[in-house]
Amino acid sequence: MLFIWLVMGRTVEILSIGNELLMGKILNTNARWLARRCTSLGLEVRRITVVGDDEKEICSAVKEALSRRPRFIITTGGLGPTLDDKTIESIAKCLDLELKVDEEALSMVREAYRRLVEEGRLDSSELTPQRVKMARMPEGARPLPNPVGTAPGMLLEVDGTTIISLPGVPAEMEAIFEESVLPVLKRAAGDVYFYETRLVVHGIVESDLAPILEDVMRANPYVYIKSHPRWEGKTAYIEVYLSTTARDASEAKSRIGSAVARLTETVAQRAGGKIRPA
Amino acid sequence: MLFIWLVMGRTVEILSIGNELLMGKILNTNARWLARRCTSLGLEVRRITVVGDDEKEICSAVKEALSRRPRFIITTGGLGPTLDDKTIESIAKCLDLELKVDEEALSMVREAYRRLVEEGRLDSSELTPQRVKMARMPEGARPLPNPVGTAPGMLLEVDGTTIISLPGVPAEMEAIFEESVLPVLKRAAGDVYFYETRLVVHGIVESDLAPILEDVMRANPYVYIKSHPRWEGKTAYIEVYLSTTARDASEAKSRIGSAVARLTETVAQRAGGKIRPA
Repeated sequence: MLFIWLVMGRTVEILSIGNELLMGKILNTNARWLARRCTSLGLEVRRITVVGDDEKEICSAVKEALSRRPRFIITTGGLGPTLDDKTIESIAKCLDLELKVDEEALSMVREAYRRLVEEGRLDSSELTPQRVKMARMPEGARPLPNPVGTAPGMLLEVDGTTIISLPGVPAEMEAIFEESVLPVLKRAAGDVYFYETRLVVHGIVESDLAPILEDVMRANPYVYIKSHPRWEGKTAYIEVYLSTTARDASEAKSRIGSAVARLTETVAQRAGGKIRPA
Repeated sequence: MLFIWLVMGRTVEILSIGNELLMGKILNTNARWLARRCTSLGLEVRRITVVGDDEKEICSAVKEALSRRPRFIITTGGLGPTLDDKTIESIAKCLDLELKVDEEALSMVREAYRRLVEEGRLDSSELTPQRVKMARMPEGARPLPNPVGTAPGMLLEVDGTTIISLPGVPAEMEAIFEESVLPVLKRAAGDVYFYETRLVVHGIVESDLAPILEDVMRANPYVYIKSHPRWEGKTAYIEVYLSTTARDASEAKSRIGSAVARLTETVAQRAGGKIRPA
């Protein structure tokens, strides 16, 4: 039971919201940034979902994610002032939570517009209905200050899962993450250490390396191993990536070390290939 | 009811499979490419899901997607020879379909390795168990030839939804898509009008044209745009191909017209290049 709790306590789902992603207008760089950041913290990203700016789609994606009971759901997109920014409203409706203007969020929005006027980037800091909209939060939610934009993020606890909503603008998403989300995630990740390394294998094709990697993985179940065929001019080689997360640094390093040793040995013996660090 | 059928008949879900995506090691360029390509064909991408190389995760994602009854589910990744390539096997298990070596797929795999040996890129075309694995298909599936790699794609009809599985290597994914998937999608897109045009761009190199094309594509998501560097004697030029699909001819033409206008304008302004019809 304790083991299951620990595993559940480190899982993350990412939910990207935006029609432009479904139309292929832009690359989902936000999901990649979040995935990398969470992984390096020792958290485990289990799923990334992309839906459009549609209340029903957002709601069903949030409910499905909640049913898998991840420790965190991090959403990006749909927090702005326009009518098609529907994330917060959809989450509130979906979870049957009252949506109202949050005073703390409102003062964040007010402050953001005051700053923009001061910087000469805007004429009026008037709180129009569109701007006030960004301060509406479901009951129980906590607004997260946006140091580089106008829309606050949101943090909401739902039955053991923390829903974190961030804007879609990458600079704003990253800034809120580093300032307000990171401490929360670190607390959940606890004392874990993430270690990774990259190797380059020459003189062996991927299909021949495959059974060797299988053998190394079987012998090192806590090490994640992935191979990628690469080309340098006309020379083919294989890049092998190894990573692990452990409760302490020496454990993580020794896991990787033992996998690398076995891989190097087997490649040399069985296939006459050579390995060097990438 | 008819209306719903028409709408359902054009919906697509994309399922990307690979731990490297969940760890943020790579950007999901495949999903973006497929989303753009499907959108330009007049299809509607409703959801993009990313799961890891895990049988249970793949299975639950496939079942959930099927329950939403899209016309197509396009999966990428997990078709290779290694143990963590689990897509086909997971789909078969999940749908309770028998998995066995498909003779047509096997001859595709055999041919691919024969080609690699002929090209001097491989020593042996022996069909090892890892290579034969790529020819295993669920009953009722149709293998799709892979013109640039070894793993065939797969097409499987399930209760009105067509599941299409493509490799994760972008060049292989794109090649199978253009050769075998495109005709199937076009048929489903149905009574739509397809309009295409070709332009020749002089006085600008492809790497400078690339960001301009990106901008035109973002502004015209329903238009598919592709550029090809060409030579005429010693003169380099770029051929740009634009196409779109719409419910009526004038809509299709006006979409292409607006993309061509923006392209012509930006090329002239930003790069001093010239455009003429091909």
